[in-house]
Amino acid sequence: MPTRPRKTLDTFPNPNPGREYVIRHVCPEYTAVCPVTGQPDFGTIVVVYVPDRLCVELKSLKLYLWSFRDEGHFFEQATNQILDDLVKAMKPRRMTVIGRFNVRGGITTTVVARHQAKPRRRR
Amino acid sequence: MPTRPRKTLDTFPNPNPGREYVIRHVCPEYTAVCPVTGQPDFGTIVVVYVPDRLCVELKSLKLYLWSFRDEGHFFEQATNQILDDLVKAMKPRRMTVIGRFNVRGGITTTVVARHQAKPRRRR
Amino acid sequence: MPTRPRKTLDTFPNPNPGREYVIRHVCPEYTAVCPVTGQPDFGTIVVVYVPDRLCVELKSLKLYLWSFRDEGHFFEQATNQILDDLVKAMKPRRMTVIGRFNVRGGITTTVVARHQAKPRRRR
Amino acid sequence: MPTRPRKTLDTFPNPNPGREYVIRHVCPEYTAVCPVTGQPDFGTIVVVYVPDRLCVELKSLKLYLWSFRDEGHFFEQATNQILDDLVKAMKPRRMTVIGRFNVRGGITTTVVARHQAKPRRRR
Amino acid sequence: MPTRPRKTLDTFPNPNPGREYVIRHVCPEYTAVCPVTGQPDFGTIVVVYVPDRLCVELKSLKLYLWSFRDEGHFFEQATNQILDDLVKAMKPRRMTVIGRFNVRGGITTTVVARHQAKPRRRR
Amino acid sequence: MPTRPRKTLDTFPNPNPGREYVIRHVCPEYTAVCPVTGQPDFGTIVVVYVPDRLCVELKSLKLYLWSFRDEGHFFEQATNQILDDLVKAMKPRRMTVIGRFNVRGGITTTVVARHQAKPRRRR
Amino acid sequence: MPTRPRKTLDTFPNPNPGREYVIRHVCPEYTAVCPVTGQPDFGTIVVVYVPDRLCVELKSLKLYLWSFRDEGHFFEQATNQILDDLVKAMKPRRMTVIGRFNVRGGITTTVVARHQAKPRRRR
Amino acid sequence: MPTRPRKTLDTFPNPNPGREYVIRHVCPEYTAVCPVTGQPDFGTIVVVYVPDRLCVELKSLKLYLWSFRDEGHFFEQATNQILDDLVKAMKPRRMTVIGRFNVRGGITTTVVARHQAKPRRRR
Amino acid sequence: MPTRPRKTLDTFPNPNPGREYVIRHVCPEYTAVCPVTGQPDFGTIVVVYVPDRLCVELKSLKLYLWSFRDEGHFFEQATNQILDDLVKAMKPRRMTVIGRFNVRGGITTTVVARHQAKPRRRR
Amino acid sequence: MPTRPRKTLDTFPNPNPGREYVIRHVCPEYTAVCPVTGQPDFGTIVVVYVPDRLCVELKSLKLYLWSFRDEGHFFEQATNQILDDLVKAMKPRRMTVIGRFNVRGGITTTVVARHQAKPRRRR
Repeated sequence: MPTRPRKTLDTFPNPNPGREYVIRHVCPEYTAVCPVTGQPDFGTIVVVYVPDRLCVELKSLKLYLWSFRDEGHFFEQATNQILDDLVKAMKPRRMTVIGRFNVRGGITTTVVARHQAKPRRRR
Repeated sequence: MPTRPRKTLDTFPNPNPGREYVIRHVCPEYTAVCPVTGQPDFGTIVVVYVPDRLCVELKSLKLYLWSFRDEGHFFEQATNQILDDLVKAMKPRRMTVIGRFNVRGGITTTVVARHQAKPRRRR
Repeated sequence: MPTRPRKTLDTFPNPNPGREYVIRHVCPEYTAVCPVTGQPDFGTIVVVYVPDRLCVELKSLKLYLWSFRDEGHFFEQATNQILDDLVKAMKPRRMTVIGRFNVRGGITTTVVARHQAKPRRRR
Repeated sequence: MPTRPRKTLDTFPNPNPGREYVIRHVCPEYTAVCPVTGQPDFGTIVVVYVPDRLCVELKSLKLYLWSFRDEGHFFEQATNQILDDLVKAMKPRRMTVIGRFNVRGGITTTVVARHQAKPRRRR
Repeated sequence: MPTRPRKTLDTFPNPNPGREYVIRHVCPEYTAVCPVTGQPDFGTIVVVYVPDRLCVELKSLKLYLWSFRDEGHFFEQATNQILDDLVKAMKPRRMTVIGRFNVRGGITTTVVARHQAKPRRRR
Repeated sequence: MPTRPRKTLDTFPNPNPGREYVIRHVCPEYTAVCPVTGQPDFGTIVVVYVPDRLCVELKSLKLYLWSFRDEGHFFEQATNQILDDLVKAMKPRRMTVIGRFNVRGGITTTVVARHQAKPRRRR
Repeated sequence: MPTRPRKTLDTFPNPNPGREYVIRHVCPEYTAVCPVTGQPDFGTIVVVYVPDRLCVELKSLKLYLWSFRDEGHFFEQATNQILDDLVKAMKPRRMTVIGRFNVRGGITTTVVARHQAKPRRRR
Repeated sequence: MPTRPRKTLDTFPNPNPGREYVIRHVCPEYTAVCPVTGQPDFGTIVVVYVPDRLCVELKSLKLYLWSFRDEGHFFEQATNQILDDLVKAMKPRRMTVIGRFNVRGGITTTVVARHQAKPRRRR
Repeated sequence: MPTRPRKTLDTFPNPNPGREYVIRHVCPEYTAVCPVTGQPDFGTIVVVYVPDRLCVELKSLKLYLWSFRDEGHFFEQATNQILDDLVKAMKPRRMTVIGRFNVRGGITTTVVARHQAKPRRRR
Repeated sequence: MPTRPRKTLDTFPNPNPGREYVIRHVCPEYTAVCPVTGQPDFGTIVVVYVPDRLCVELKSLKLYLWSFRDEGHFFEQATNQILDDLVKAMKPRRMTVIGRFNVRGGITTTVVARHQAKPRRRR
């Protein structure tokens, strides 16, 4: 069982590409290293998306988030990178990534980033 | 009492097809097998629909959901298949299926899929 | 005190027919017999309506709901029948009946049905 | 201290008729007699209004609600009569009376009635 | 259905006098008249007892509490009288009566009185 | 599936009679008929016991409680009878039955009855 | 109705001096003047006692607490004085006075004082 | 990753056998088959123990509980068997197993079983 | 009102030294500087005591706690010093000081310290 | 600010060794690696102790808990090791360490370990 953290995100074919539906993953075990202090940060990553032709495989998503564990990341940068990496791997129709990070210096931080495949009009 | 899980969904005539009304079933005892790990998954399936000429019979719905118990299903696929099978059996005017699945690998997943009978304009 | 369950719904004149106002009755003691298994079902019936010329008399409503006790009813049929019987007896301007039924086979069911007297436009 | 229940509602001049503001009175000690069974009913009366030139005097409101104690009233009729009497005495710009009545025959009843001074367009 | 409030408390034989068991009645609809101001008071009466040879009949208890409606009672006196009348009618092994009365003059009052049939020692 | 309510309680051998352990059943769907008014009563029955050589079979308990549906029972009598019938069928080491009954006449009633096999001293 | 605040506490004969029972009054409308800053203080006074031959009359208690309004009192002194005055007027078997005072200077204060008629031993 | 359900419970040496400390595992994903109806049951298993020389390995516990999935078990028997199997594998100083099972036939069941290594007296 | 933070604690004579009663002050606005990082810490200080001949004056307590604002204090030291200073100033019969401090470095700290005037035995 | 995780626990002299008082630290950001799967685990560590001559320095405790981040630890072993290391560094009079660990394989685990300096009798 020598699973390892890695940056690659595995996907599988969307089982129903003809339907516009929503998938949400909530991952409360995000941790990385603060680039300024070198100390660990903690937080919850929420991924909400409408798949197009691909879905992210759950174990792969776990290993991907695990890959941040020993890296230095600002909160804002990490949230955007996770969105970028997921968009690149899956090309979803729409995706939102929310990072809710634990208190540091008495301050709690939340970052929300969105992607939309095309400038088509919604709702 | 030799009831068995089975894929067929029994229906009964909508007692009031002239009225547009809403039925919701909440089923917290969904379980299936993960196709990747071979281990059991658990979750809650919520079905909300406006019937047209048919309603799903409750015991039949129970046996249908029971039929996933020994099969391999991804969360996204199972949610869409339940919607597809219910739509096929009942041809409802509108239907939403929500799958809320237990934490796996530290990640909690929710899938929401909708069906609408025709592209008529709603509210 | 030989009160008996019965299907008739007594009404009394709306004390203020010139005003559009709302009445809500919550009845958590509904019970009937399942037509499939022959076993008792339980639930809560909520009636919300805008009366026109008649209001339902409360004791009569109690006896009416009591009349389901020994009869076989599906959840969907019972909710619609209660709406139909109340509409027939009172001819309300608007009425909603909600049936929230206890778990059966691991599944909890809610049915929501609405009636509106005429296709006049609302708010 | 021979205060007695009575039907008259005393008022006092609205201290700021140029302003549209809201007053709410919550009276959880309403009781009357059921016209059908002759037994006491209990409930909470909520009065919310925007005064025009007059406000209802509080002790007067208490004595007015007290006057229902020995009278027979249906829930629907009482709620509307309280609204009518208050509207007649104060001519408010808008008023809502809510009657929340204790369970009788296993059924809990709420009545909501509104008055608006003129068909002018709101909000 | 000409039931009337009355002071008599009906009893029925304890169905299991050989067993020491506990009965609790909670009555949130107590009302009486204040002997000082002549105005209505409201409260909740809780009766907890271990029956000996007699139990209090529920409808009789309702009519008995109703009998206070037009009488003048101090909170302390009413709570003790209810205990005395119940003890006299039923001769219970143990009984507690709790009166929780609504705010009067900005003050909320609770009275707790106990009776024990004999000076035998309890757990 | 022609199951019928019946008074007999089926048992099965305690799978571990050498161990003193606790079983609790909570049954929120009790209903019977009031012997005074002829109207239905509702409540929740809780059974907690330490089995000796026999356990009560769950479906049998359901049918047994169902058998009260068309019978007349006082709250105190029903709670004691359920305890007596269960004690007779199972001869448990210790058992408590709690009946929590819905409001009737504005009064909510709870009955708690205990049985102990022998006067041996506990903790 | 020219009632005035005053220091005298009226009593009435304990309706059941042969029984040891408990009375609790909760008065959330206490106000006095801070002797140091001259500014108003607010708080809740709770009185719990076992009466001997006298009970405190409720309106009298209201007027007594009202008498603190324009006087200067420390929290500790006020709580003890209320206990002393009540003990002097009623000679109760046991009494506790609790003063819960609103935040002042960022600090919330509670004072609890007890009196017992004789050094007899309590449970 | 061909993990399979199995009855064997793996253990590892207690890292601190000289200390009496407590371990609690909460497993909300228990499922088995009802021996009477052949239908699936669901529940939560809680294991609390003081280890002696061995601790139960967590993944092994997961696979062990998984092994009930296709077997027939009564609630009482399953709870006792889990306790017996864990006691046999680990020989703990003390252990409690709690089974909280989902509603069946309108009845919710909890079973609590304890084991103690020797009749030595505790606290 | 040029009040200044200062270390002296003013007292006033216990208004009732013959009675053993309890005073509690809750101060949620404590702040000091961390001696290690030089950064501000925040917390709530709770003081509970039985006075002997002196009580602490409330404004003085406020200024005293204010005096920590620009000083360096460990959580443990501050809690004990506050207890020591209060004991020295008031010589109470009993006193407890609780310091509940905000999260620092991902860790939340609480310190509870007690003083008792003499080794006399309490309840 | 090149702080690094490390195994050494810094202490500072107990500011009041003559007093028996309690310190509690709650650390919700514990993470380590599972020795079986190589994957990260997460949890909350609670430390409660009565210091003797030494207290643990808070930043040092943070770095110490950080040192588990890249190491393999079973839940039971980690909780006991944290207790052992803290006892060795501080020699407290009494100490409890609680480890509450996130769900793994559908199972949530808690470990509670206590240390007491000497077998002297408390309270």
